Amino acid sequence: MTSAHDRIIAAVDRLFDEQVEFLETLIGFQSLRTEEAAAQDFIAKALTDRGFTVSRFRTDSSKIGEHPAFSPTTVNYDNSWNLVGLKTSTGNGGRSLAFNSHVDVVPAGSKDRWASPPFEPRRDGDWLYGRGAGDMKAGLAASIFALDAITSAGLSLSGEVQVQSVVEEEITGNGAATAFALGFTADAVLSPEPTDEQLVRANAGVIKFRLETRGRPAHPREPESGQSAIDLMIRLIGHLRVLERQWIADRAGKRWFQDLVNPVALTIGTISGGDWIASIPSDCVAEGRIGFYPGEDPKVRAREVEAFIDLIQSEDPAFAGERLVTLSWVGVMHAGYELPEGTDAEKTLRSAHAATHSGTDLDAYVMACYLDAAVFSVHGNIPSLVYGPITENIHGIDERVNLSSLRRVTKTLALFAADWCGIQENEQSAPPAKP
Amino acid sequence: MTSAHDRIIAAVDRLFDEQVEFLETLIGFQSLRTEEAAAQDFIAKALTDRGFTVSRFRTDSSKIGEHPAFSPTTVNYDNSWNLVGLKTSTGNGGRSLAFNSHVDVVPAGSKDRWASPPFEPRRDGDWLYGRGAGDMKAGLAASIFALDAITSAGLSLSGEVQVQSVVEEEITGNGAATAFALGFTADAVLSPEPTDEQLVRANAGVIKFRLETRGRPAHPREPESGQSAIDLMIRLIGHLRVLERQWIADRAGKRWFQDLVNPVALTIGTISGGDWIASIPSDCVAEGRIGFYPGEDPKVRAREVEAFIDLIQSEDPAFAGERLVTLSWVGVMHAGYELPEGTDAEKTLRSAHAATHSGTDLDAYVMACYLDAAVFSVHGNIPSLVYGPITENIHGIDERVNLSSLRRVTKTLALFAADWCGIQENEQSAPPAKP
Repeated sequence: MTSAHDRIIAAVDRLFDEQVEFLETLIGFQSLRTEEAAAQDFIAKALTDRGFTVSRFRTDSSKIGEHPAFSPTTVNYDNSWNLVGLKTSTGNGGRSLAFNSHVDVVPAGSKDRWASPPFEPRRDGDWLYGRGAGDMKAGLAASIFALDAITSAGLSLSGEVQVQSVVEEEITGNGAATAFALGFTADAVLSPEPTDEQLVRANAGVIKFRLETRGRPAHPREPESGQSAIDLMIRLIGHLRVLERQWIADRAGKRWFQDLVNPVALTIGTISGGDWIASIPSDCVAEGRIGFYPGEDPKVRAREVEAFIDLIQSEDPAFAGERLVTLSWVGVMHAGYELPEGTDAEKTLRSAHAATHSGTDLDAYVMACYLDAAVFSVHGNIPSLVYGPITENIHGIDERVNLSSLRRVTKTLALFAADWCGIQENEQSAPPAKP
Repeated sequence: MTSAHDRIIAAVDRLFDEQVEFLETLIGFQSLRTEEAAAQDFIAKALTDRGFTVSRFRTDSSKIGEHPAFSPTTVNYDNSWNLVGLKTSTGNGGRSLAFNSHVDVVPAGSKDRWASPPFEPRRDGDWLYGRGAGDMKAGLAASIFALDAITSAGLSLSGEVQVQSVVEEEITGNGAATAFALGFTADAVLSPEPTDEQLVRANAGVIKFRLETRGRPAHPREPESGQSAIDLMIRLIGHLRVLERQWIADRAGKRWFQDLVNPVALTIGTISGGDWIASIPSDCVAEGRIGFYPGEDPKVRAREVEAFIDLIQSEDPAFAGERLVTLSWVGVMHAGYELPEGTDAEKTLRSAHAATHSGTDLDAYVMACYLDAAVFSVHGNIPSLVYGPITENIHGIDERVNLSSLRRVTKTLALFAADWCGIQENEQSAPPAKP
């Protein structure tokens, strides 16, 4: 008789074409920040059709600041819905599992540099292209189809399972924070972010900033009579690079971080200044992020940056002792986490990975960015496994996910769910309602 | 009997309240680039009412490149009209004069940093505030009211006089270039730009550029896997500052420029890059201007910059030998001029200035920027006098013109016109038609 594992793997293969079509549809929703609702409607319907109890909820911005999982926002959440599909166990109390994914994507960048439109999925050989294909709609679809495969194999999980599809991962983490605060936790969390089929051992804490410089506009015939807000911003960024180099140097002695090039990057994501080619510009704004090591308090890092900018303004003569810089925190302000070695959850994932990778051991690595898994790890002490498919150019041009990898990962997720929650045979052999 | 000079001066005083009201109306027109038409309609009516023959003409963009007075444009000129009001001499062939002013203004910058809305003129004591109040609607109004005063004094000019109101001074100089190319020249040009009641001895040549950097966008978890277009731009600007320092050093030995802090400034007027706070940005654009000394060919300076940027891209490892920078020329590309000492035109202005300034001598100085006067000076070898009122914060916040200064300057312009063109008594003593 075929083993349950083999039946599940066969079911993933059987459903994989449908899975890719599902993913293509999902990529077609331009689920940029505050524009996630249509994608969530699609996911909600998919989960409802599959027999999940679907909860929809928004982040209550008034709660920000009350719970450390929440971060400052600059937008309102009127149309930003989070979803959790929940299926209670049918059996004898296995362990519970939450698949956590985010449906929001970052902007496409220069669309004309894409080989094809970023929100029109395009398959080329073993790759599926599109903004969000890798980060992380492939993972979200994989979690749904991994559970489909178990059902399709005639099996049920013995523990409660959730499919979380949250918003705001790319900016504040407030979607995951809200899910967590509402009690959507489990004995283990698995977040199928794009990890190239590796396990995330640790991530970085991240704070996101907005810098504004105020110049003294003037005519370029006497540039010395004014002070360019753009030049001030460039100068300020130069000073901050000194601070960044100190942070990078601190990686020595950090167990998982010491061999990385720059796990605590200060990156400038956007800049905008001036309004006339031949004026000394009055204002400049730049936004970016700063990484830091797990175990460090995001508020301490924020205070360090604030104090440094105060120092620059008092010591760099370009600022003439004036307060020409406004710093604000406009996105995630969250600690990093370290996944403890040797948890049962990790052992279970290692076993599932080996089963779908010809016995190859699961590698672990550091992903030096914010991850929603941090919410569950830091605030809930829940083993939070981040593990997903091979991708290229996430946040870049021609983002893509590797389909063979996605198939393997979907199998791993299915086997993990089966082994973690436990499975039981469905009583009837009638085909399941869906799919 | 009262002298003609005294009658003219008295007429300027008599009309000055009306002049300020006229100027206030003119400031109210938001005559930004391509939005100058309403202001020009107002000026055209004012000139027509005063008996000028008014010519309206646009720049034919297809002519750009054929005549060295013209510069590259990035906009079309469908609604950008230039005006020349011309009054032929009634008498015995005196010298001709063109008052040259521009009606276009630069954007207001951060409107919320203005004490009052920039396009709503506000009088506070001896100052009139508003974008364009100084640069140079005050001068345009002064040229019209200087001529009104001569008429109001019962006098006529013996030479042909023009009031030019052109567009595009702030960006390409193509308005003045078109007037020049159409033959709107004279024996002398007087341009009442904001000069603090001094004469411009020399100006700077100027070229205006657009720089685009192309990065390799990436996720900030591995910043080293991408290349930030913003960081590349900052780096490129840093390199260009080295070039600027060489140019500044070259001022030693330049007669009028050697004591100036930075007469050949490279200024960045605008910058814009990236589209997401936590991506490594793919693109960045910056625009600015470069000054150079009179006698230098703008095309030579442009070629120098082009070659330098090529060198940077091949030698700075950040560019990895790739052509990641696109440079284009998007505005004025024009030589500077030096006003020869001792012209009759200058002597006449000195005399008029002394007459309205208690005998004080006229100071001359360098204005290190593009001026439309350069078109007439460089290409027509016409004595081009740039002389206008005291202002503050042109191109800045709370731009303003000093009204006492404006009154003095209007008197100087009127006496200059009278002495340069010659005057004659109107035959009838009936009040002139207007005003």
